[in-house]
Amino acid sequence: MILQPIVDLVSLCAKKGIRHAILSPGSRCAPITLAFARHPEIHTKTISDERSAAFIALGMAQQLGQPVALVCTSGSAAYNYAPAVAEAYFQQIPLLILTADRPPEWIDQWDGQTIRQTEIYGKHVKGFFQFPDEFGHADKVWHANRIVNEAINLAADFPAGPVHINIPLREPFYPEKEERFDFDKDLQVINQVKGRPTLSTDQKKVIEQELLIYRKILIVPGQQFPDLALRQILDQIAANHQAVVVTDSISNLQSSRTICLHDHYVGNSELKNSLHPDLIISFGKSIISKSLKLFLRNSEAAHWHIQPAGYVPDTYQHLEKTISCDALDFLQLIGQTVQSNLDFAKHWTSLEEKVRKHLPATIHGADFGEYKALQTVLAKIPAASKIHVANSMAVRYLNFLGKIDPEVYSNRGTSGIDGSSSTAVGCAFVSDGFVTLITGDMAFFYDRNAYWHNYPMPNLRIILLNNHAGGIFRLIDGPARQPELEEYFETRQPLDGKSLAAEFGFGYHAAADQESLESGLNNFYEKSERPKILEILSESPKNAEVLKWVKAQIAAVLK
Amino acid sequence: MILQPIVDLVSLCAKKGIRHAILSPGSRCAPITLAFARHPEIHTKTISDERSAAFIALGMAQQLGQPVALVCTSGSAAYNYAPAVAEAYFQQIPLLILTADRPPEWIDQWDGQTIRQTEIYGKHVKGFFQFPDEFGHADKVWHANRIVNEAINLAADFPAGPVHINIPLREPFYPEKEERFDFDKDLQVINQVKGRPTLSTDQKKVIEQELLIYRKILIVPGQQFPDLALRQILDQIAANHQAVVVTDSISNLQSSRTICLHDHYVGNSELKNSLHPDLIISFGKSIISKSLKLFLRNSEAAHWHIQPAGYVPDTYQHLEKTISCDALDFLQLIGQTVQSNLDFAKHWTSLEEKVRKHLPATIHGADFGEYKALQTVLAKIPAASKIHVANSMAVRYLNFLGKIDPEVYSNRGTSGIDGSSSTAVGCAFVSDGFVTLITGDMAFFYDRNAYWHNYPMPNLRIILLNNHAGGIFRLIDGPARQPELEEYFETRQPLDGKSLAAEFGFGYHAAADQESLESGLNNFYEKSERPKILEILSESPKNAEVLKWVKAQIAAVLK
Repeated sequence: MILQPIVDLVSLCAKKGIRHAILSPGSRCAPITLAFARHPEIHTKTISDERSAAFIALGMAQQLGQPVALVCTSGSAAYNYAPAVAEAYFQQIPLLILTADRPPEWIDQWDGQTIRQTEIYGKHVKGFFQFPDEFGHADKVWHANRIVNEAINLAADFPAGPVHINIPLREPFYPEKEERFDFDKDLQVINQVKGRPTLSTDQKKVIEQELLIYRKILIVPGQQFPDLALRQILDQIAANHQAVVVTDSISNLQSSRTICLHDHYVGNSELKNSLHPDLIISFGKSIISKSLKLFLRNSEAAHWHIQPAGYVPDTYQHLEKTISCDALDFLQLIGQTVQSNLDFAKHWTSLEEKVRKHLPATIHGADFGEYKALQTVLAKIPAASKIHVANSMAVRYLNFLGKIDPEVYSNRGTSGIDGSSSTAVGCAFVSDGFVTLITGDMAFFYDRNAYWHNYPMPNLRIILLNNHAGGIFRLIDGPARQPELEEYFETRQPLDGKSLAAEFGFGYHAAADQESLESGLNNFYEKSERPKILEILSESPKNAEVLKWVKAQIAAVLK
Repeated sequence: MILQPIVDLVSLCAKKGIRHAILSPGSRCAPITLAFARHPEIHTKTISDERSAAFIALGMAQQLGQPVALVCTSGSAAYNYAPAVAEAYFQQIPLLILTADRPPEWIDQWDGQTIRQTEIYGKHVKGFFQFPDEFGHADKVWHANRIVNEAINLAADFPAGPVHINIPLREPFYPEKEERFDFDKDLQVINQVKGRPTLSTDQKKVIEQELLIYRKILIVPGQQFPDLALRQILDQIAANHQAVVVTDSISNLQSSRTICLHDHYVGNSELKNSLHPDLIISFGKSIISKSLKLFLRNSEAAHWHIQPAGYVPDTYQHLEKTISCDALDFLQLIGQTVQSNLDFAKHWTSLEEKVRKHLPATIHGADFGEYKALQTVLAKIPAASKIHVANSMAVRYLNFLGKIDPEVYSNRGTSGIDGSSSTAVGCAFVSDGFVTLITGDMAFFYDRNAYWHNYPMPNLRIILLNNHAGGIFRLIDGPARQPELEEYFETRQPLDGKSLAAEFGFGYHAAADQESLESGLNNFYEKSERPKILEILSESPKNAEVLKWVKAQIAAVLK
């Protein structure tokens, strides 16, 4: 039997611009699955592990800037979405989560695949809707359609995020032979036209006056999607020495004019005093650099955060003002108002330039390991390739290296290692050009089901930094001193990428030294039908040693 | 720095009988991890994928009948526990979930690995406790210790289940060199002595009177842990024809006197009328057999459910009475009260005997595939081996075959495929004898991280039924008729067990016909240092064909 409200749900998704759905196999969800699979305007893919499925949808929605639908069956399937739902919530990525469920009267009756799905994602969704389970009264049809409209509008509204519709379904789930899906019904579409918050002339005047108080302004953009207009205005502000712009790798706003190598000196107690701002201006989401965070928290500066809507955290413990408008509008105000301060800028740029000058040669002179390999790799990634970088060390290395060019994505909403590969796979699904995933071995094998499906991903390239352990634990002081380091923190693991590559027919090259790395990179970005893995094998103690050595060398240069 | 309340938490776990903890790597959780790792009475293991870690703990607690502690770091790690938490809740397995968290003031401040962990498992835990984050006032220490006592008591109390303590922790997480863990503090232990609900003489008299009304009693135990006393009384009741006892494979109460092959005839419209009871008596949890469920729902019988405590579902839609006492006490009442009814028993036993006589030969005569292979395998599993059986087809086959002897475990709380392997691994960790996992390929590869750790499991044996797809979808009528069958329901997958066996150093034998199966079984249960996989390769369409053919043969015999 075909349930028309489910067909209408899918029609409404299409009418409201959803073009992709990630489905996971199940019987209870079959009416939704079939409606998506048969809708002419929606692309569908089937991913068996729901944990990966949800991160894949997240990786797609991140690129598309519009909700991707997720469909799973009832029971614990829905719970396997949860890690990605939390990531989407904090990374502000729109997802439309559609979970099939038993009808309410069958909950808690010990039937199979039945849990308590109402509000199952708790405080990690923007909204929860319970779809009607009976359509006898005409208002029920109106309610069902309204729910779909409201849910999609809510998911897409800034700050975007996941929205959950729980859908109770009764047997029969499957259409009879003669039944056809009718996607052409005239349906009520509720569009959403949202004005953006804009500062009034009076508000701007007040802010201009206030800005005049400050002479040392630091602009610290958090995680951002690439934005050319923002990048241009920031470049101009930096060029005019109106402010120092400190760009973490995930800000996607790095340029030759912005500070990218701050991790090498903002934590240096001898140098950092001259760097302190009197005003911090931030927008976007989180930053990666822990030393930058601590530097800002220890500063005496006021902190203003610019954000059109949503709650504002006090990340640096000096939040003084939240300003609801677009970052671009506010930065233009800075450009028009703030005086140049070459001295302050020079404190930063002189350190930045020294690191920029000495770091590559220093790393080049280091023993082979993750750090050196990554410097080599970054130089070879095509500018047009998007970079996905996994938690936990991979994303930090990128920050140390101050990577400027390609777009960089990382799951910094929750900073988990659980879905980095799947998110990159989702990105590859909707990207024409290359997508390069840089990942450590723990994140890679944790999420290996990212690759357990039947879609080819010819544009995916994987740089696998394999030290057979969670190497980060050797790099931080506390665990490295414990006798439990190897078993309980690093957790040594035996796998390498070779057998995974063989399982899925991926290209594969292993590099344990500089020469084999360079030969591996030679044809890495040549066309292929399947992804390629370039596995960089290194030893965790050696990596820790190199990191310390480079740090000492750079500290000496900066003295 | 050592935080004494965390040390006390672990001491209390030990004092209250917890002997095992499953840890996952992380820095925020380091104080808890180290305290568990250094406690002399608690065995710890590290599992990197928290989804598997939680199912492993569940598999251990299921065997031990006491809570196992789970420790993870902050952020999405906690959400990866969720599928196992739901399974533990509905399967009534005690777990003590300890999640590290940032202190409350740092929630929602865009720091790494920070989500909203308060009550994160919603309605799937028996209780949630927020551990104090400051111990300046003496009452806070009392509160912390009380929480641990209450949580463990609650987890273990019937019906058992998961309990969550969220533990905010501030840096520094690691002890200084000279610091020592003091596990010897005198701590307040709150013991729990619970009487069991017992029927009064008057209540028994009323029930005895009521029982006299019924002449056709069907006893249907749901999922149960093995229980010799129950088995004996049920055998006696069946032998005396006081009731017909229908035992699903997960009831662990099957015997030669009970009905085990009901799946072959209770759905048969020509036969089932003579089988209808006038009273259904159930205890334990769910049953697997859908045809038995439908048969009972379509019956006119009254239904009494026996259970000492907890909510009682109306699984068969005729619930008339819930009786709070131990099943054993109630069954003794039946044994003393109910008259024999040979006629009613014969309706069942004559069908049962026919199937028991003809089924083995029928399957023996079938083409090679999962059904035939499993019949061969079951005959070879040592009686002392525990059997773990994965959702979704594997557990159904076991029911069709009416397996009698070894203990059978299956995740029928939520009936997900997400943690069947991990649960078997947990069982192997705490079992001296063999543990045999019977699993389909979808469940097996979904949860392959069950094996991603450094513990040997010499007693684990894996029967992998690989048809390279979710074969169940071809066996049910709806999806088999859809053009989307292979992509969206079966979801064909290319993996086999060979490369996984190579990755982890497991023994491996592949069988695609009866001969190679038998040769593979010859030394399958010989001692080994690592697990062994016996992979049974078959084709999904052929399996569907055999299942239909066997069904038709048996139906013909029963006519």
